[in-house]
Amino acid sequence: MLLSYLQRKMILKQHIFMSLQYNEFYHERTGLTIGLKKLLYSKQSEYQLTEVYETDTWGNLMIIDGMVMLSEKDEFVYHEMIAHTALFSHPNPERVLIIGGGDGGTAREVMKHPAVQHLDMVEIDRNVVEASRLHFPDVGDFENPKINLLFEDGIAFVKNVTEPYDVIIIDGSDPVGPAEGLFKKEFYQSCYEALNEDGILTSQTESPWVKSYHQSIQAVFRNLKELFPVSSMYLCFIPLYPAGMWSMAFASKKYEACDSVVEERIKSSTFAGNLRYYNSEIHYASFALPNFVKDIVR
Amino acid sequence: MLLSYLQRKMILKQHIFMSLQYNEFYHERTGLTIGLKKLLYSKQSEYQLTEVYETDTWGNLMIIDGMVMLSEKDEFVYHEMIAHTALFSHPNPERVLIIGGGDGGTAREVMKHPAVQHLDMVEIDRNVVEASRLHFPDVGDFENPKINLLFEDGIAFVKNVTEPYDVIIIDGSDPVGPAEGLFKKEFYQSCYEALNEDGILTSQTESPWVKSYHQSIQAVFRNLKELFPVSSMYLCFIPLYPAGMWSMAFASKKYEACDSVVEERIKSSTFAGNLRYYNSEIHYASFALPNFVKDIVR
Repeated sequence: MLLSYLQRKMILKQHIFMSLQYNEFYHERTGLTIGLKKLLYSKQSEYQLTEVYETDTWGNLMIIDGMVMLSEKDEFVYHEMIAHTALFSHPNPERVLIIGGGDGGTAREVMKHPAVQHLDMVEIDRNVVEASRLHFPDVGDFENPKINLLFEDGIAFVKNVTEPYDVIIIDGSDPVGPAEGLFKKEFYQSCYEALNEDGILTSQTESPWVKSYHQSIQAVFRNLKELFPVSSMYLCFIPLYPAGMWSMAFASKKYEACDSVVEERIKSSTFAGNLRYYNSEIHYASFALPNFVKDIVR
Repeated sequence: MLLSYLQRKMILKQHIFMSLQYNEFYHERTGLTIGLKKLLYSKQSEYQLTEVYETDTWGNLMIIDGMVMLSEKDEFVYHEMIAHTALFSHPNPERVLIIGGGDGGTAREVMKHPAVQHLDMVEIDRNVVEASRLHFPDVGDFENPKINLLFEDGIAFVKNVTEPYDVIIIDGSDPVGPAEGLFKKEFYQSCYEALNEDGILTSQTESPWVKSYHQSIQAVFRNLKELFPVSSMYLCFIPLYPAGMWSMAFASKKYEACDSVVEERIKSSTFAGNLRYYNSEIHYASFALPNFVKDIVR
């Protein structure tokens, strides 16, 4: 019985093997499988390999060094949650900095806030912007005259800020490769200094389900806690990221994320009703952490 | 360049092909991949095929008709969320019914509540209980003398209840095969009648990310809304279920899930501090729905 079962599995596998398929093994041999139609873009920079595939069900998919960055179908979750959680927590976010975020989706969400007067977006790799412009036409906002796109190393950039920001959003990739420095204390120290005295920072901080990320996650929250009077993790559901649970960091010099004024601010905004993930209940709820997640960042 | 890239992928794939791997394709060709060590159990009943594998990272894994039911590493989320959300919302849950739940994990969580005097657990397939007893020794509670385990069709059972329940938990599998009837109106009507006048029901209701589930999800919530004065969806993160976002239904004849007394009840309980997912913040937060999920159940 066991043998015949395995044989059946092997036949199924041979069938799958014939078709193009992306596998991300994010935790030993646990991972995600996505059916692919064709490769649209593949370019190696001095930093990383950027690829775009057309998929069966997720629209176009960007993969950097083998890790899913975004798909057309699910990108709204990440971009809404990393942008609006910070911007609605600030009463008047005029000056914003995005480190990374080359696909332009975070910029698109930031620019929905009428208070924003100036956005610096510092992406290290031109290929990410090129791939997004070519294959994710609805994702990126690159044209708004208030956006200043710079191709530089964000870690170096933030050390030399002269005019501080109200909000800094760290929209980098996983803590390997060029984004490794985005998880270090010196970097957060620079961000702290580059923020106004009531500034807010948000950052993506990996999946709490993936053990190999725990050290990076713990380091980020320890660093933020040492620097900022307010710091918390919040969570969102991202189906194409490892385990479907993604964490982000909120750190603030003055404002609390879960202050009751935030609800009023979201409800009176002209665009929040058109968002696809974020709303006032989600804003507060995302800061509730399961016990096993609390244990990681305690 | 494209060709050589694909060749590279094919070599990688051939390597993966050599090792035993489970793929669940939950949405066209999107799915989950789990590395397997060996098959521990495989038995076809008149209803379904129950299999247990030893995995690389998730402990033992139960698969029914090709769908992940639970792993030793992540089962706590599902079982805590389907049991405690109902039981903490009720002031005195003495009599409880579980439909399905043959792995015993939901029963284990229910029996943590000292108010529970009697639990009927109605599982259609003996193999699920057998597989759990053999290969998930820490999951199931089958020994507690307050638990009455019956091997019957839950749909028929609930039609003939004479002594009503305070809480009914519908812990079935996906709406195909023997669990199909668990998504129909007649079944919810029977459940309503089998509940006391202040009774509460919870049920698993699939992933909002998977389009092919939408009709089933909508039918469940439409049915519950017609029958119960209180009904809502709530969400939890389950890494081995499709897309990592899982929905459950809460329906109640009298009590609100998000009443402020629930927090007090959770905080004063003797065991809530030892749970691994559920806590009082999670209880309320799980009822906050992203806008795209609201649109599905509106």
